Amino acid sequence: MKNQLVECVPNFSEGKDLDKVEKIIDCFRGKEGVKLLDYSSDKDHNRSVVTLVGDPEAVKTAVVNAMGVAKDLIDLTAHEGQHPRMGATDVVPFIPISNIEMDECVALAKEVAELAYKAHGIPSFLYEAAATAPHRSNLSKLRKGQFEGMAEKVKDPHWAPDFGETIHETAGITAIGAREFLVAYNVILGTNDLKIAKKIGKMVRNSGGGFSKVKAMGVAMEERNLVQVSMNLTDYKVTPLYQVFEYIKMEAKRYGVSVVGSELIGLAPMAALIGSAEYYLGIEDFSMDQVLEKRMLE
Amino acid sequence: MKNQLVECVPNFSEGKDLDKVEKIIDCFRGKEGVKLLDYSSDKDHNRSVVTLVGDPEAVKTAVVNAMGVAKDLIDLTAHEGQHPRMGATDVVPFIPISNIEMDECVALAKEVAELAYKAHGIPSFLYEAAATAPHRSNLSKLRKGQFEGMAEKVKDPHWAPDFGETIHETAGITAIGAREFLVAYNVILGTNDLKIAKKIGKMVRNSGGGFSKVKAMGVAMEERNLVQVSMNLTDYKVTPLYQVFEYIKMEAKRYGVSVVGSELIGLAPMAALIGSAEYYLGIEDFSMDQVLEKRMLE
Repeated sequence: MKNQLVECVPNFSEGKDLDKVEKIIDCFRGKEGVKLLDYSSDKDHNRSVVTLVGDPEAVKTAVVNAMGVAKDLIDLTAHEGQHPRMGATDVVPFIPISNIEMDECVALAKEVAELAYKAHGIPSFLYEAAATAPHRSNLSKLRKGQFEGMAEKVKDPHWAPDFGETIHETAGITAIGAREFLVAYNVILGTNDLKIAKKIGKMVRNSGGGFSKVKAMGVAMEERNLVQVSMNLTDYKVTPLYQVFEYIKMEAKRYGVSVVGSELIGLAPMAALIGSAEYYLGIEDFSMDQVLEKRMLE
Repeated sequence: MKNQLVECVPNFSEGKDLDKVEKIIDCFRGKEGVKLLDYSSDKDHNRSVVTLVGDPEAVKTAVVNAMGVAKDLIDLTAHEGQHPRMGATDVVPFIPISNIEMDECVALAKEVAELAYKAHGIPSFLYEAAATAPHRSNLSKLRKGQFEGMAEKVKDPHWAPDFGETIHETAGITAIGAREFLVAYNVILGTNDLKIAKKIGKMVRNSGGGFSKVKAMGVAMEERNLVQVSMNLTDYKVTPLYQVFEYIKMEAKRYGVSVVGSELIGLAPMAALIGSAEYYLGIEDFSMDQVLEKRMLE
């Protein structure tokens, strides 16, 4: 039986009271089949982001429990923070990592949404790959109006919750969905001319006519007196790292600018990096099953 | 507490009687902290090669048990096979994979050697990084004379066992040691001229004045009418894949020959491949802790 691995990155609307955060995190600690990779709290955002990975069933149970704890501890009627939010548990994305397909992550999101409503009375929107209509896919659009405007917004059939009738009085509503792993990858240019980074950013990103799975913008690196093309690769299997790196090198050349290097921000699945090694080394008939750690995780 | 991972690739002198092989393999199945990655038996060699990985303590216990089972099941006085051998358990190398240093693998090899002698009366040589003298490092030199000549050979103080006085009557003697992970990596040339592959093989390998951690030879790929530089990278941390790949491209150029691609044979640790992605993409300040699977295995 293949060992399925799913990632989940729930966001909770509490980043100041760390005792409360720890109580939520306890739902993920020492649970069979669940690995807590990381969590961090931001006071200004008044929000905590948790990264866990594991067996889909075990992750499902842990997340539903944590949503119940967050509902009991977080009161959005008294919540202040810079980051937009609509729920005590604000967002719950499921991300396929290993031996699991996107449609299985969609099914998992729906199960979690149903359980969270039945067990804790938490209503939800299904979003991204789990969305029940195209206009409901985008998280920012779902969250527009935030907690304060949400009771009114969900009366519009276009924005009716997928589970529940209206929002929870203090815990609001949660966006639960499925998406690909986001790789945050920046390519650094040998110039301090921000216009060039912006132009290349536009060329490389989907919305500018570039690669379909790339979001990009030009950003100044002030302390180094350089600029970079800062990117989110929204599906590294479709648009791999080497593709954007080589393309940016090519575009930079027309401005007489060199590529100094690149940065990987945060985590990436090993396949995102190994795919580029396979490309540059021209490895024939390569299989991820040749990677020791892949086999160890099976 | 860091999660240490060690690989062990014990070779057993039985490749025909698969019932016996399965009884040995049972020592590695379903054991807490031990992951059986692979095993294969070769009838002509009359030998089985097992690949396992796991927690050092758990691997130690499993390997010592398997050596006991192999001693009971395999009688070298009746053993025939093409592969040189001197013991029922012929070789036991320990290889550092994650959060473990070579000297810890050396200590592990010595513990296994001591336990195998105390529990089962199996004598051993310590070899490679665990060798107790430089002339005892090389496996082929230790094994020279094979089982049939070994009782006589070990009377010479130069070849005295590290554990035990003489060899076991039916189970012989085992080489137990520690070494780096071997990556089998071949670079394919766009020519059928074997002389060119042999010349480049000589340039790239340690014994020809090339890279210190490379063994290489030129080999014909007859079905494709091409040749390749076939290599063992004996320490990919010292001589990484991209280094030999780029060097071979450079040498091939002087013969007017292109590099068609490369092959990775068998398993490699993810770091061996990710190191090359890091090089080609020019990723600054990269850490293996940014790799999701690395974190999952901790």
